[in-house]
Amino acid sequence: MGNENDEEVILLDYWPSMYGMRLRVALAEKEVKYEFKEEPVGGVKSPLLLKMNPIHKKIPVLIHNGNPVCESLIAVEYIDEVWKGKAPLLPSDPYYRAQARFWADYIDKKLYAPGRKTWDAKGEEKEEGKKELIESLKILELEALGDKPYFGGQSFGFVDIALIGFYSWFYTFETFGNFSIEAECPKLIAWGKRCMKRESVSKSLPDPRKIYDIILSYRKDVGLE
Amino acid sequence: MGNENDEEVILLDYWPSMYGMRLRVALAEKEVKYEFKEEPVGGVKSPLLLKMNPIHKKIPVLIHNGNPVCESLIAVEYIDEVWKGKAPLLPSDPYYRAQARFWADYIDKKLYAPGRKTWDAKGEEKEEGKKELIESLKILELEALGDKPYFGGQSFGFVDIALIGFYSWFYTFETFGNFSIEAECPKLIAWGKRCMKRESVSKSLPDPRKIYDIILSYRKDVGLE
Repeated sequence: MGNENDEEVILLDYWPSMYGMRLRVALAEKEVKYEFKEEPVGGVKSPLLLKMNPIHKKIPVLIHNGNPVCESLIAVEYIDEVWKGKAPLLPSDPYYRAQARFWADYIDKKLYAPGRKTWDAKGEEKEEGKKELIESLKILELEALGDKPYFGGQSFGFVDIALIGFYSWFYTFETFGNFSIEAECPKLIAWGKRCMKRESVSKSLPDPRKIYDIILSYRKDVGLE
Repeated sequence: MGNENDEEVILLDYWPSMYGMRLRVALAEKEVKYEFKEEPVGGVKSPLLLKMNPIHKKIPVLIHNGNPVCESLIAVEYIDEVWKGKAPLLPSDPYYRAQARFWADYIDKKLYAPGRKTWDAKGEEKEEGKKELIESLKILELEALGDKPYFGGQSFGFVDIALIGFYSWFYTFETFGNFSIEAECPKLIAWGKRCMKRESVSKSLPDPRKIYDIILSYRKDVGLE
């Protein structure tokens, strides 16, 4: 497993990105060595990013032997297909694959905007963000996770990878939003703690307080603190 | 190919849906027989739709032996994986698969909202919709299609299926928006005509004038005509 001699794997990423975290965890699960290239912040995009993702101009981008793969879930599927011998991420049965893709897509559609409102909005809009975020997390807990250890059942996989980056933002959402996700979704928090026991996860995710710190300084910059 | 004796395939759909058209074309390419169940319009959702897609409550839904698959691109991948012997829709190489998924995702993200503005908005917002739609179509033409007969090369596949439903809405976009897509994107229109020569496509898509007619009566209802 892991890299062949002639393989070059580069990840264009920015450390607090919940989407970048997906690729980091997937590569760690597959034991693929890669070069992490931190994209500079503050509006200036690197020439390499502009060349590798000219359409969206966004991280994360996986560059495998010079070929870019953009959009995080697509890159995770790519990683699963290329390094398929170890730690399968998607189930092999087509119906369960479709279910996994459905929930990963749900995470993409339902969490980012309300999560952001918990720390970037005020008054009614902020309250709306909290409410929407909790509703979506409850649906994930009830309909997708249930009493299973991981979303796909007994083994860590695609939906866990899709959600785990958001888990490292929960502290930021909760602290600025002044609410407790654990009080609303205890099984989801137990799932997050379970995932954090995996080295592929704990070594790929930043300390939640570091995310809180950059958001705190952002809020000071824009006059929200 | 096609259906086994004990297979039941049902499509919950609404005839003008560009997303439903994807499943119709994919099933036709695979020569899978299915029952088309038209979802009633006007806000009332059928009990079957609510049961089969309780999360999004949207068509299209593919029901295969009682199991629902929601979200059109996920359903097209499911169809490709279950009926894999005939007319492969996604390429077999992981990198080309990622490219196909990237462009299908681009279509999902970039066309619906501006397309809708061409017939549902007025003034500046309408002009903005036309401009954005043309820009996105030009990127598809230049970066994804190029001089190939189909998006994936010589054979009809996943990205063609992702886009073809929008092609049947072009007449509506152009007529209410008062512009010509062919003048801006001639290769894309040639691609659409090429696709329409396939029976799987021509038999799955409605007459563009029928779509125009329902949008015309919608516009009368809301006072835009």
